[in-house]
Amino acid sequence: MASLQEEKVFKDPVHKYIYVQDQPIWDLINTREFQRLRRIRQLGTSFMTFHGAEHSRFTHSLGVYEVARKIISQFERNAYSEWPREERLLALSAALMHDIGHGPFSHSVERVFGTHHEEWTCQLVLGDTEVNKVLRDTDPSLPRSVSDVICKSYGKSIVVSMISSQLDADRMDYLLRDAYFTGVNYGTFDLERILRVIRPYQGHIVVKDSGMHAVEDYLMARYQMYWQVYFHPVTRSSEIVLRKIFERAKKLSEDGYTFGFLPPALGSLLRGTLTLEHYLQLDESYVQMTLSQWRLERDRILADLSDRFLNRRLFKYISLQTFPEPWEEELRDWMRRVGVDPDYYTAIDFLSDVPYDVYRAAREEGDSSLPIMLLEGKDNLVEISRKSDIVRSISAIHLGERRIYYPEDRLRLEAFRMPADWRIRLGL
Amino acid sequence: MASLQEEKVFKDPVHKYIYVQDQPIWDLINTREFQRLRRIRQLGTSFMTFHGAEHSRFTHSLGVYEVARKIISQFERNAYSEWPREERLLALSAALMHDIGHGPFSHSVERVFGTHHEEWTCQLVLGDTEVNKVLRDTDPSLPRSVSDVICKSYGKSIVVSMISSQLDADRMDYLLRDAYFTGVNYGTFDLERILRVIRPYQGHIVVKDSGMHAVEDYLMARYQMYWQVYFHPVTRSSEIVLRKIFERAKKLSEDGYTFGFLPPALGSLLRGTLTLEHYLQLDESYVQMTLSQWRLERDRILADLSDRFLNRRLFKYISLQTFPEPWEEELRDWMRRVGVDPDYYTAIDFLSDVPYDVYRAAREEGDSSLPIMLLEGKDNLVEISRKSDIVRSISAIHLGERRIYYPEDRLRLEAFRMPADWRIRLGL
Amino acid sequence: MASLQEEKVFKDPVHKYIYVQDQPIWDLINTREFQRLRRIRQLGTSFMTFHGAEHSRFTHSLGVYEVARKIISQFERNAYSEWPREERLLALSAALMHDIGHGPFSHSVERVFGTHHEEWTCQLVLGDTEVNKVLRDTDPSLPRSVSDVICKSYGKSIVVSMISSQLDADRMDYLLRDAYFTGVNYGTFDLERILRVIRPYQGHIVVKDSGMHAVEDYLMARYQMYWQVYFHPVTRSSEIVLRKIFERAKKLSEDGYTFGFLPPALGSLLRGTLTLEHYLQLDESYVQMTLSQWRLERDRILADLSDRFLNRRLFKYISLQTFPEPWEEELRDWMRRVGVDPDYYTAIDFLSDVPYDVYRAAREEGDSSLPIMLLEGKDNLVEISRKSDIVRSISAIHLGERRIYYPEDRLRLEAFRMPADWRIRLGL
Amino acid sequence: MASLQEEKVFKDPVHKYIYVQDQPIWDLINTREFQRLRRIRQLGTSFMTFHGAEHSRFTHSLGVYEVARKIISQFERNAYSEWPREERLLALSAALMHDIGHGPFSHSVERVFGTHHEEWTCQLVLGDTEVNKVLRDTDPSLPRSVSDVICKSYGKSIVVSMISSQLDADRMDYLLRDAYFTGVNYGTFDLERILRVIRPYQGHIVVKDSGMHAVEDYLMARYQMYWQVYFHPVTRSSEIVLRKIFERAKKLSEDGYTFGFLPPALGSLLRGTLTLEHYLQLDESYVQMTLSQWRLERDRILADLSDRFLNRRLFKYISLQTFPEPWEEELRDWMRRVGVDPDYYTAIDFLSDVPYDVYRAAREEGDSSLPIMLLEGKDNLVEISRKSDIVRSISAIHLGERRIYYPEDRLRLEAFRMPADWRIRLGL
Repeated sequence: MASLQEEKVFKDPVHKYIYVQDQPIWDLINTREFQRLRRIRQLGTSFMTFHGAEHSRFTHSLGVYEVARKIISQFERNAYSEWPREERLLALSAALMHDIGHGPFSHSVERVFGTHHEEWTCQLVLGDTEVNKVLRDTDPSLPRSVSDVICKSYGKSIVVSMISSQLDADRMDYLLRDAYFTGVNYGTFDLERILRVIRPYQGHIVVKDSGMHAVEDYLMARYQMYWQVYFHPVTRSSEIVLRKIFERAKKLSEDGYTFGFLPPALGSLLRGTLTLEHYLQLDESYVQMTLSQWRLERDRILADLSDRFLNRRLFKYISLQTFPEPWEEELRDWMRRVGVDPDYYTAIDFLSDVPYDVYRAAREEGDSSLPIMLLEGKDNLVEISRKSDIVRSISAIHLGERRIYYPEDRLRLEAFRMPADWRIRLGL
Repeated sequence: MASLQEEKVFKDPVHKYIYVQDQPIWDLINTREFQRLRRIRQLGTSFMTFHGAEHSRFTHSLGVYEVARKIISQFERNAYSEWPREERLLALSAALMHDIGHGPFSHSVERVFGTHHEEWTCQLVLGDTEVNKVLRDTDPSLPRSVSDVICKSYGKSIVVSMISSQLDADRMDYLLRDAYFTGVNYGTFDLERILRVIRPYQGHIVVKDSGMHAVEDYLMARYQMYWQVYFHPVTRSSEIVLRKIFERAKKLSEDGYTFGFLPPALGSLLRGTLTLEHYLQLDESYVQMTLSQWRLERDRILADLSDRFLNRRLFKYISLQTFPEPWEEELRDWMRRVGVDPDYYTAIDFLSDVPYDVYRAAREEGDSSLPIMLLEGKDNLVEISRKSDIVRSISAIHLGERRIYYPEDRLRLEAFRMPADWRIRLGL
Repeated sequence: MASLQEEKVFKDPVHKYIYVQDQPIWDLINTREFQRLRRIRQLGTSFMTFHGAEHSRFTHSLGVYEVARKIISQFERNAYSEWPREERLLALSAALMHDIGHGPFSHSVERVFGTHHEEWTCQLVLGDTEVNKVLRDTDPSLPRSVSDVICKSYGKSIVVSMISSQLDADRMDYLLRDAYFTGVNYGTFDLERILRVIRPYQGHIVVKDSGMHAVEDYLMARYQMYWQVYFHPVTRSSEIVLRKIFERAKKLSEDGYTFGFLPPALGSLLRGTLTLEHYLQLDESYVQMTLSQWRLERDRILADLSDRFLNRRLFKYISLQTFPEPWEEELRDWMRRVGVDPDYYTAIDFLSDVPYDVYRAAREEGDSSLPIMLLEGKDNLVEISRKSDIVRSISAIHLGERRIYYPEDRLRLEAFRMPADWRIRLGL
Repeated sequence: MASLQEEKVFKDPVHKYIYVQDQPIWDLINTREFQRLRRIRQLGTSFMTFHGAEHSRFTHSLGVYEVARKIISQFERNAYSEWPREERLLALSAALMHDIGHGPFSHSVERVFGTHHEEWTCQLVLGDTEVNKVLRDTDPSLPRSVSDVICKSYGKSIVVSMISSQLDADRMDYLLRDAYFTGVNYGTFDLERILRVIRPYQGHIVVKDSGMHAVEDYLMARYQMYWQVYFHPVTRSSEIVLRKIFERAKKLSEDGYTFGFLPPALGSLLRGTLTLEHYLQLDESYVQMTLSQWRLERDRILADLSDRFLNRRLFKYISLQTFPEPWEEELRDWMRRVGVDPDYYTAIDFLSDVPYDVYRAAREEGDSSLPIMLLEGKDNLVEISRKSDIVRSISAIHLGERRIYYPEDRLRLEAFRMPADWRIRLGL
């Protein structure tokens, strides 16, 4: 577990510098699997809405590592007995590796093809990879431990909670980072203050009660980022178009269609036979380049949708709130009649389809993340929403709007055949 | 020349917001050719050195437009008679379009294949494109005027100097933007103050003499960015590796090699038969995806170099300053003998090969950019380096270091056969 | 109403620059009465808690002017018909002048001596002052109009609401400014975005409904600033000590005590006979210098309290929440017995004594400030807390903690005579 | 040398937080002598030019301490053998105390009365003060050591160079702090990067040669701050008016004039009989309050100058560059003839009168500060201006302009009696 002879640094816009002090961390960063994260954006299709949001999962992963390093350094400086010092390198490695299984445009791909980045992470950490070799050479049990921490099954829960909890290094980095690169300043909170008020306590990271307002500020930042950035309707639209492309390509593949262009890794994705090697090739440049060729496919739906995605001719949307529910079925029927396939040219979006993460006070089914606990005095824990009106209100907010997305430009061509009140509804 | 009914904005990390007030500007942004700039990075391979530097030419082009808009708005607010108000839309369009001809990794591609982004810009503005249509529909003479402004041949030099001079909207945006996304804070200068001290005067943008220190600050920012970012030796290394890939592929293509993977646009680039349509397909995802397949080519040099680029196994370098000059030839001979082709695995780099731009007081051959002039009193113009010691010192700095780049890992394998003093020189 | 020949600017850390375009505004800034605001701190005694908070009401007043200027400029640029253009100079003057009546450490002084800064503002605007002369020379009716706007009785309510409402130039500047100078970053919100979503509508400034989240962010900034800065218990302590000084001095004056040092303006304050001329002399340097002499007074209470204030030997506090209410009376009795006068050495503080301003949805008795209204579509107004859970929760928060402040160092000397459980309570 | 049980922090706008870890540091901050620095501005009269610049020497002293703490912490973390670990508390104490002898408006006061803040610092550290007691109780030799470090006579020069050298904690804090509070952003440099490139070496703090550009950036920040802030002509004007007030008061005192208001400490300053106790009372509120009373003095010159200072009716200036030198004597004669005493109403200002500090490569007479040395390889030291063109150019810049200051408003009244060409020169 060699230290580096001389600390190395990365210049980072969010944390100013990222400090690497251990040889294994340096080696992990230089693996092929980790370098690949440079070619996968942190925010998927959000760059279509916020043009600055081109930052990669590589930058975020370094950032999570750095926040974890700062937390541990604070714990060590204060000599908190509840922090197990021997877990330092494991915690740092897991922080760095936690997103390594992500593929291109994960949301859309996972939904259409049923892959899970968590599974790929396990394969990448435990399988025959450069990452595995670095970990194994450091300590033969390290690959398994890293995988356990990422899958939340590691025995010492304090290590897990550093990268997967309501107040973890992952969220702390991505809020600051996404705010920085999109340019919205809602996501900003006082990281240095949060670091000062957290403590290891009974296997979890808790917050000194005097830090309540700092956590409120952090949760408000989260709330604002969800509404302003992560749930942004234009971003949703670009995800929908991308999903429709994948659905169409999958259907064509199943129907035996011969693609004009189909590079091997994407072929195996369509057929559901992805190998680890192919998975590693599949990055966002791979997908985008393929779309640039699919613009020229004979299949007009695939070609049109690919062109829409690349040239940002996205779907428009209206809220379905005020319309009687069966209307969307009527619309789909009508579209079919005028020759616009509703399976590929319309979509209903509930915000609740989006992984919802603002803050939950109560533990839900399948939700392993503990709520945020305040530590009053020496040993009294209280869940934060019991003390804070602000947090209670954030955690009670329901996301419910249903929207329908559709290609305004295409429907406008047929609008003359449409009932007049529909035209008004759809803004045609 | 319709105004938009309601001003539209883009959220931008550098200028906070980018304001669009004219329908033609809005339409230009939505063309296929402009959207393509999203897939071309502003700083080429610099993201290998500064992981935040993934920002695209799309964001920079919007930024140049916004700086130009601010300059014009200042000129209009102060009712300066030397600003020709009727040129507003032309100036804004040219600011937005000035980089539209850029291809992927322009430096390396242009050097190997002899293409010029300026020529493609003309083709894109004057040819059969969406951009041309928007301009033509606004005013039939607009495509030609935009092209003239970008090529610096437009009659009213004040419009040209807004986007191509020592103190233009292009440089002002890229310094701030590149500083922001790399995270270095040397590139920061007080844009608002510069805007307050510039004036249109006799067909040029000049600076009120009380603004001298603000311009010094801007030129220092430029100087620092060149040394810290643009000339960074790791960035140079990644450019060299990429250039070697293209040189190898071109050679293979000339030799009749059959590529395992060669998508059409890249094929025509190698053969020197690029059409406009292919040029538009050629973006950085196209190149990167191709490299991911070239990693698997039979040709071992192409495969190895592609792998190096993708997985950031770059060349190391040493300064040649202190060595007798013929040594590099000896090294190349030795490499040839041990089976490492020096044509692809070594390169000499002079910094002066890099487009040098810190600041030149004197006009050089072929340099159309006027120096920065201070306006003293009502009508006395003085070139800034005659008044400012700082600027004089910046403009006198010579860039001269010669470096040799080489694959340290590869040479290390053969180091036992190498003269001992060479091993020390090369750090093996 | 002459424009300045050339725009003048002040460098400002919060708004970057403050632009002055009108001669009367320039002249108002240069009056003796406005320059005096340089010697009165914006945040009273908060500099004892946040050492950066030395900024003056002069800087804040310029800031309010600048925010008002930006609002008006937005209204004019968009040519909103509901904004009365002829009121521009009045609105700017009132924004600049709104705090001109403030004296030193207003909170404490007003509480002890029953003065009101609003009344002094009227006297300063309407009386025989340089401010009055500038206004009168611009337009004879201007002094009265300015005074009416500040007192909220001016006919055109839109002008009033620009400087006195839940979303006014005053609050927008002080949140940003106090956050900047204290260094807390909770007070930051996106001013540029707020400016983009407000509209004049039926005599009020309302918010486009799409701007709801921007207003939530602004109200959260307000909420955080209240808890982190304005209600900070150490600041409360320094205000209490100062109040006790004034109470003691007033008592001594009433009792005919002969002060070793009593400059004229402070003498007339103690006797309740302040003239306008004396009021203008009374700034914070006047008070602080006097305290430095009162440290040497024969009266030991006045001397001790003055020393405590100057050298920051403040009172400590505990919450009374958990104690039975009459205890504080017992404590006062005990203090009297051991020779520590409880009238000057103890104080009960309710947070609700503080001007409470986080946000009220409902209009209370005597509260002239309208709630914030969202404009849905063309003409539907909704109070924001009806749409926003966050705002509803902020506006429902009750401030109720009662604290007792006491001189810990002094009581510690007598602690051996104190019941043991009291010692624990008081941390002695 | 007890550590604090729990680290204490101050919120600071420049360094975010200032961390106190040692009981003696905490106790020093709470002394009467250190708290007094709250009432002395860091930038003297600069608040007249930059309204945000109200920050005190208290905030700056905490900042110098914090920078020193960061430097030492870096030295300890890297275990540099050349850093004497046992000097930590001494270095921190000296950093905190280095400005403790400063009085109000030091520049003007020291020039008129011949006092020296360095001497007062020694008295405050070595005499019968709270500061002395805290130091003595920590270690009986500490007062002497602290005084030696501040006077640059301490044996271990590395401790001295931390707070008094060309790249010391003092300058690093004040550049950042003065830039922050004035709002100019020229003073910003990358402190974190500087911290990473400095090393203790042979009793001095030197810079790794790869850090040259970071130091260039720091020196440019210094250069810009000098021109934009410290030498600002309006600030010079306010210092001149203040100096004239003191000169007049001193003259009156010598002539036996009976002041309407003369508080004791100022009296002893005028008579040259200042005691330590009086010196401690003399802060800027003391001076400003006195000026507010001197506005009402019988002596018309003292009254008028005091009014000018308080209400910012400063002197204007012109450059004497282009005029034949004896002219200023002619002007003085003429002023005498029209009844405006030139001894109090005019002043010649050379910028070279100002303590000049941009950067000197060569050691001058009486200049104990070593130049900045770059460390090449293991043991080659080179003075930075030998490597850097930028630094060479900064250090060669001569400040030479001579200006004359005069009361434009007053002279305008007599302008009709003045030669016409003088009127033009003086802008009357």
